[in-house]
Amino acid sequence: MNYNLLKGKKGVIFGALNEQSIAWKVAEKAVEQGAIITLTNTPIAVRMGEVDELSKKLNCEIIPADATSVEDLQEVFRRSMEVLGGPVDFVLHSIGMLPNVRKRRTYDDLDYDMLDKTLDISAVSFHKMIQVAKKMNAVAEYGSIVALSYVAAQRTFFGYNDMADAKALLESIARSFGYIYGREKNVRINTISQSPTPTTAGSGVKGMDKLMDFADRMSPLGNASADECADYCVMMFSDFTRKVTMQNLFHDGGFSSVGMSLRAMATYQKGLEEYMDAEGNIIYG
Amino acid sequence: MNYNLLKGKKGVIFGALNEQSIAWKVAEKAVEQGAIITLTNTPIAVRMGEVDELSKKLNCEIIPADATSVEDLQEVFRRSMEVLGGPVDFVLHSIGMLPNVRKRRTYDDLDYDMLDKTLDISAVSFHKMIQVAKKMNAVAEYGSIVALSYVAAQRTFFGYNDMADAKALLESIARSFGYIYGREKNVRINTISQSPTPTTAGSGVKGMDKLMDFADRMSPLGNASADECADYCVMMFSDFTRKVTMQNLFHDGGFSSVGMSLRAMATYQKGLEEYMDAEGNIIYG
Amino acid sequence: MNYNLLKGKKGVIFGALNEQSIAWKVAEKAVEQGAIITLTNTPIAVRMGEVDELSKKLNCEIIPADATSVEDLQEVFRRSMEVLGGPVDFVLHSIGMLPNVRKRRTYDDLDYDMLDKTLDISAVSFHKMIQVAKKMNAVAEYGSIVALSYVAAQRTFFGYNDMADAKALLESIARSFGYIYGREKNVRINTISQSPTPTTAGSGVKGMDKLMDFADRMSPLGNASADECADYCVMMFSDFTRKVTMQNLFHDGGFSSVGMSLRAMATYQKGLEEYMDAEGNIIYG
Amino acid sequence: MNYNLLKGKKGVIFGALNEQSIAWKVAEKAVEQGAIITLTNTPIAVRMGEVDELSKKLNCEIIPADATSVEDLQEVFRRSMEVLGGPVDFVLHSIGMLPNVRKRRTYDDLDYDMLDKTLDISAVSFHKMIQVAKKMNAVAEYGSIVALSYVAAQRTFFGYNDMADAKALLESIARSFGYIYGREKNVRINTISQSPTPTTAGSGVKGMDKLMDFADRMSPLGNASADECADYCVMMFSDFTRKVTMQNLFHDGGFSSVGMSLRAMATYQKGLEEYMDAEGNIIYG
Repeated sequence: MNYNLLKGKKGVIFGALNEQSIAWKVAEKAVEQGAIITLTNTPIAVRMGEVDELSKKLNCEIIPADATSVEDLQEVFRRSMEVLGGPVDFVLHSIGMLPNVRKRRTYDDLDYDMLDKTLDISAVSFHKMIQVAKKMNAVAEYGSIVALSYVAAQRTFFGYNDMADAKALLESIARSFGYIYGREKNVRINTISQSPTPTTAGSGVKGMDKLMDFADRMSPLGNASADECADYCVMMFSDFTRKVTMQNLFHDGGFSSVGMSLRAMATYQKGLEEYMDAEGNIIYG
Repeated sequence: MNYNLLKGKKGVIFGALNEQSIAWKVAEKAVEQGAIITLTNTPIAVRMGEVDELSKKLNCEIIPADATSVEDLQEVFRRSMEVLGGPVDFVLHSIGMLPNVRKRRTYDDLDYDMLDKTLDISAVSFHKMIQVAKKMNAVAEYGSIVALSYVAAQRTFFGYNDMADAKALLESIARSFGYIYGREKNVRINTISQSPTPTTAGSGVKGMDKLMDFADRMSPLGNASADECADYCVMMFSDFTRKVTMQNLFHDGGFSSVGMSLRAMATYQKGLEEYMDAEGNIIYG
Repeated sequence: MNYNLLKGKKGVIFGALNEQSIAWKVAEKAVEQGAIITLTNTPIAVRMGEVDELSKKLNCEIIPADATSVEDLQEVFRRSMEVLGGPVDFVLHSIGMLPNVRKRRTYDDLDYDMLDKTLDISAVSFHKMIQVAKKMNAVAEYGSIVALSYVAAQRTFFGYNDMADAKALLESIARSFGYIYGREKNVRINTISQSPTPTTAGSGVKGMDKLMDFADRMSPLGNASADECADYCVMMFSDFTRKVTMQNLFHDGGFSSVGMSLRAMATYQKGLEEYMDAEGNIIYG
Repeated sequence: MNYNLLKGKKGVIFGALNEQSIAWKVAEKAVEQGAIITLTNTPIAVRMGEVDELSKKLNCEIIPADATSVEDLQEVFRRSMEVLGGPVDFVLHSIGMLPNVRKRRTYDDLDYDMLDKTLDISAVSFHKMIQVAKKMNAVAEYGSIVALSYVAAQRTFFGYNDMADAKALLESIARSFGYIYGREKNVRINTISQSPTPTTAGSGVKGMDKLMDFADRMSPLGNASADECADYCVMMFSDFTRKVTMQNLFHDGGFSSVGMSLRAMATYQKGLEEYMDAEGNIIYG
C-alpha cells in the first residue's frame, strides 16, 4: 500500500527495538509512505537491539537518548531538525518499562522506587518529550504526536499491575498537552489504545498468551497486529486527521466495546463444564 | 437495616412482578425504611404475577397501567397523589420487554415491529412517565427518579440483542430529562446499571446462566443481588444523594471496570486446555 | 490531496442534499480518491435538493429511497451492486430529522409520534440499512460502514432535544451490529462524532450559531469543517483502519475532551462582568 | 439528618485542614451518623490548621503523618486500630498539592521535581495508604475506601494543569486496587468526582471563581457543596453501597453530563454581544 500519504513529512520515532516492536513497523510504514525520519531509543537498547539494522534499511539516523532526560530529549530534537532539515511533522512515543511486573511484585506489594520508574519512563517521558519539542519549536504547525496505550487504562486486567496506572497517566498527558499545543500551534496529540501485541515489552506480563487469546476471541475482527497498528499511526500522521486531538483511539478489533462474545464464551463454557452437574446447572465452589 | 432513611417520603414503583423482581425488593426496602408507596404494572402482570401478595404485605395500592400509554400514566400519578397525599418523592422504572429475544430473532434479523415495541416499552416509557409526572407536578422538589439499566448499553454482549440499544436509549433519556427536571425542580434522574440478575425478564436472554457465572467471576465483589440493588436504590432516593443526577451508576461488584480477572481467566484457561499442545502452546483453530 | 486512497473501492452515500451537506463532501472526496459510488436520499430531497448537480459532477447514479423502508433499502443495494459491479466497500449514513425540534416542542413536551419518527429516521434506519445490506451480501469483506453522530449522545446540550437520544441509539446500533458483522465478514462499523456543522439539518437547532461559537472556542483546533469530516470519512473507508470497529470517533478539534478553555472563558467572563460588584465579586441573581 | 447510618463503624479521615475542607465535613457527618474516627494530616497542617478544634469537637485523636511516607502511614493505621479498637471500616483520602500551579508554571513549562511531588502527594499516596492498610489488615471485610477527585481527570480545564494528570492517576489506582482488595477482602474502593469547591486547596487554581460560576450554571442542580459531598461520602461508607467498587462517581449537580446549558449560554452570549453586528451575526476576530 504505497500512496505517498506522508510525502514531504518528517518524523521522530521513539522506541523501535526489534522487528516485533510496533515502533519498528511504524518506522517502516512511514518511510514507505514517503516520510523521512530519525529513530531514537535508550543507549542500551541501541546497543543490544537490532535498531541498527533498521536504520540501515531505512537510511535514517539513530539518536541514542534516555527519554526521561530533558537534555537527551533536547539533543534528539536538535539533531532531528538538523538531519531532517527543519521541524518535524510527527512523533511516535512507544516507550514503556514495567520493573514491578518483571520483579513479580504484585499490585498490593509494589516497590515505590520501581513505581516511580514505571511512571517516569512510561508516562512522564511523554510530557517531557512534548515540552522539550514545544520549547524548541521542533514540531511544525499541524503536526501530529501519538503515544501507544492499552485498554488497561480504563479497565483492570490481572497481572497488568502498575502499568495500567502509567497508561492512565499517559492518556491524561495527551489530553492536557493536546489542549495547550492545539490552540497555539494546531499540533494534535492522541493515544492509540492497541490490542495486546506480542512485543518484547509485553512479554513480561503474566499469562500474556492467554490474555491475547481471550482478546482475540472477544474482538469481532480479532486482535490488531503491529503491522495494522502502524497503518493506523500513519493515518494519524497524515493530513486526513487534522482535527482529531485529545483522543484515546481504540485500535483493537472491537475489543473495548465487547462485554462478552460468543466465541470467548464457547471457550469459557468448556472451562465451566467440570463445574456442572448432570442437568447442566453450574455448581459453584 | 432499618434506619428510617425514607421516613416521610412517598414513591411509585413500576415493574414489580414476583419475588425475583428487583422492583419487588425495592418496594419492600423502601417501606422498611419508612416510605409509603404505590405499585404499578401492566394489567396482565397484575393478574398473572404475585404483586397482589406484595400489595397486601406492604399495605399499598396497585394501579394497573400500560407504561406506554400516556393516559394510563396520568392515572398512575393522579391516583398515587390521591392515595399518598401529594406529589411523590421517588419513582422507580424497572420495565423491559424483549420480543425479538423471546422469538429468537438474531440482531441481524430483527423484526422491526418488535424493535419498535422493545424501544417503546423498555425506554420511551421512561420519557413518557417523566413527562406525564412533570406536567402533573407529580414529583416533589428534590425528588429522585431511577431506572434500571445494564452494561450492555456500553459494551456488546452476545445474545443481549436489541435490548442493548433500548438500554442506551434509556440512559440517554435519563440524561436529557435530568437536565430539564433538575434546573426547574431540583429533581434528579439517574440510571443504575445492575449486575445480571436472575429475574423473569432476564431469563429469556440466551446463555444467561453462563453470562452470570462469567460476570460473577469477573467482579471482585461478585454479582450484586436484587436485594443489594434495592439497598442502592433506597440510597438514591434518600437525601444523601441530592446532587447526583444525569448519571449511569454501576452497581455490579466492579464488573464494568474489569477487563479480565484471574478467577474468570482460570475458567477460561481450562476451556483453552484442549486447544493446547504438550508444551502448553495454544493451537488456534 | 489525491492519493488514490480508495482506488478500486465502491461505495453508497446516504444523505447528500446540497453543498453544505457532509455527505456531499464525502461523495466528492471519495470519488477524488478513486472510488466509484452511488448516491441516495429521499425522493423529496432528490427533487428539491441539488443532488442532481452532484450526480452529474461525479458521474454517479442517484437512487431515491426512504431510508426507513426496507424495500427501498433493498432497491438501493440491488441497484448499487448492479451499477458498481458488485458488493460495496463502504457506506455512509448521514441522515437525521428532528420534527420535535422543528415544531419547537421542548423536551418536556415531546410529541410521541414525532419522537418515533426521530428515532426511526435518525437511528433505526441505520439498523435497517445494515440488516438489508447483510442479508443481500451487499457489503464486501473488510468493508467499512460509517454513520455521523454528535457529542450530544454523551452530554446534554440545551435545544438539541430528542435528537440526543436518537444519536445515543445510533451509536449503540453501531456497536451492536459491529459485533455481528465484524465476526462474520470483517466488516467494521463506526460512528464519527462531528463538530457542530452549518448544514441544513443542523439549522433547526435553537441558538445553533452561538453553540457553534462556543464549540469553536472550546476546541483547541477549532470546529472541524464538513470538508475535514469528509477527509476523516475517507480514512475510515481506507485500508489504513481495518481493525477499528464499534467505536465512536470524535472529530471535533478536541471539544469532547475539554471542560473549559481559556478562550471560551474569556467570552464567558465578559458576560459575567455585569454581575460583578466593584470589587469583582460575582453577584448571583 | 441523624439516621445512625454508620453506627458501630470506625474510620480514618485524611486531609481535614479547616472548616472549608471536605474532609472536615466528612469527619463531622460520619460522627453524627454514629461512627468513631481518627483524623490525620501532615504535621505542618496539624500545627497551622484548625484541626485541633475539630478533634476536640468530635472527641477524636489526630495522628500527624506525611501521607507519602510508608512509615508514617503504618503509624496512622497502627494507632487508629489501637484507639478505635480494631480494623477500620472506612477511609477517606482528601489530599492534594499543586506546586506547579502555585508557582504559576504553565503546563508547557512544568518543573519536573514539582510534577513528581504533585503525583506523589496527590495520587501515589493513595496507593501507599491502601497497600499499608492491606498489609496490616487494617481495613475490615466489607470496608469502604474513598478518594476525592475532579472531572479534570476526564476533560481538560485551563489552569488546572498537572493536577488533572494526578487525578487521572488517582482514579486509576482506585480501579487497580479495587480489583485486588475486592476479591480478597470485599473491600470496595471508589473515587468521588466532586464539583469545584471553595477549599484552601482549590484556591490556587487560576480563575477558580469564574470556573465555579460556570460549573454552577452548567449544572442543573448547581454545584454540590462540601456538606453535600460529605453526605455522599457517608452513603459510600454505609452498608447500602456494598457492591459498588472501582467506580468514579460524579457528585456534581449533573455538570459532567452537560455539554451546554441554557443558563451558562445566557452568560456566554452576553460576552458574545460585543462581537455581534447590528443584525446579531457573530463577528469572529
